[in-house]
Amino acid sequence: MTDLAAIVRERIRSVPDFPKKGVMFRDITPLLNDGEAFARVVRFYTERYRDKGITRVVSIESRGFILGSILAYNLGAGFIPVRKPGKLPFSTIRESYSLEYGEDTLEMHMDALGKGDVTLIVDDLLATGGTANATVNLVERCGATVLELSFLIELSFLGGRKALGTRPVFALVDYKNEL
Amino acid sequence: MTDLAAIVRERIRSVPDFPKKGVMFRDITPLLNDGEAFARVVRFYTERYRDKGITRVVSIESRGFILGSILAYNLGAGFIPVRKPGKLPFSTIRESYSLEYGEDTLEMHMDALGKGDVTLIVDDLLATGGTANATVNLVERCGATVLELSFLIELSFLGGRKALGTRPVFALVDYKNEL
Repeated sequence: MTDLAAIVRERIRSVPDFPKKGVMFRDITPLLNDGEAFARVVRFYTERYRDKGITRVVSIESRGFILGSILAYNLGAGFIPVRKPGKLPFSTIRESYSLEYGEDTLEMHMDALGKGDVTLIVDDLLATGGTANATVNLVERCGATVLELSFLIELSFLGGRKALGTRPVFALVDYKNEL
Repeated sequence: MTDLAAIVRERIRSVPDFPKKGVMFRDITPLLNDGEAFARVVRFYTERYRDKGITRVVSIESRGFILGSILAYNLGAGFIPVRKPGKLPFSTIRESYSLEYGEDTLEMHMDALGKGDVTLIVDDLLATGGTANATVNLVERCGATVLELSFLIELSFLGGRKALGTRPVFALVDYKNEL
């Protein structure tokens, strides 16, 4: 895994001042563009979650859809999108979370999950944990359980794990500070 | 393929008046939620495009990411996201296209593709062809070629194929009218 983390880190492009001044954005598109490297990443995550009884992979719009959908396919699980308000056409349940200024909301179809579902929550990046925790709440309100929250990247200096309580969290690469 | 199209059609939920009055929205989330059925769909698309020399799969935000990323993985190709303005952090090229009222724009990273790349363009649905044609233009401006545009669903009554000229188009399911 150390080797793999190094491969991933080499293919993450750090873009200063995006989306706003003072933020260093971690861009995974060079990793995705390298089919061979990204396939190694996918195989690693697939092995991590194989035979764990996962019935649904819940992915957060929209970069989370990329790894999440491949894992759902590889694990033989259903794929559940969690989206910004107004994007899902059927009846939804909603969870709001705080931003630096104001709040935002995520939605999931109300019939997406049921009691007995074992889910893996997937997104590209764990920052403050706001969207991840809102997604945990959506899943648990349906009576389903969260086996793990899985990310490519963690920004541990933002303390996102704290927002997620005792739920297991995994990330392949950690940036311990903004630089 | 006829059987598979029937399986898909049974799992598409038609939602009237979404996102606005008079539009029948074709919701693929029940298909995605059925891991076994969606895996059959993925295997079909994978076989269709295997050994065709595809180097990159170009997918349109955000439902296009779901099938597109799995195909990129299965084909050993790189994955290229095409996104709404302001989402991609690095230098981009842009293409605008007409909507019923006004216009919209799509972006792709300027270093995503190069001469010699053979691409498959993937989205969930072909409607008027505006976003698909903008994506073709982004790909061809990089000197890359489009092997085929591939969709789960086509709304042929909207005439999207006409917008795409002579480029090959494939869709598993066609809705020939709004109902």
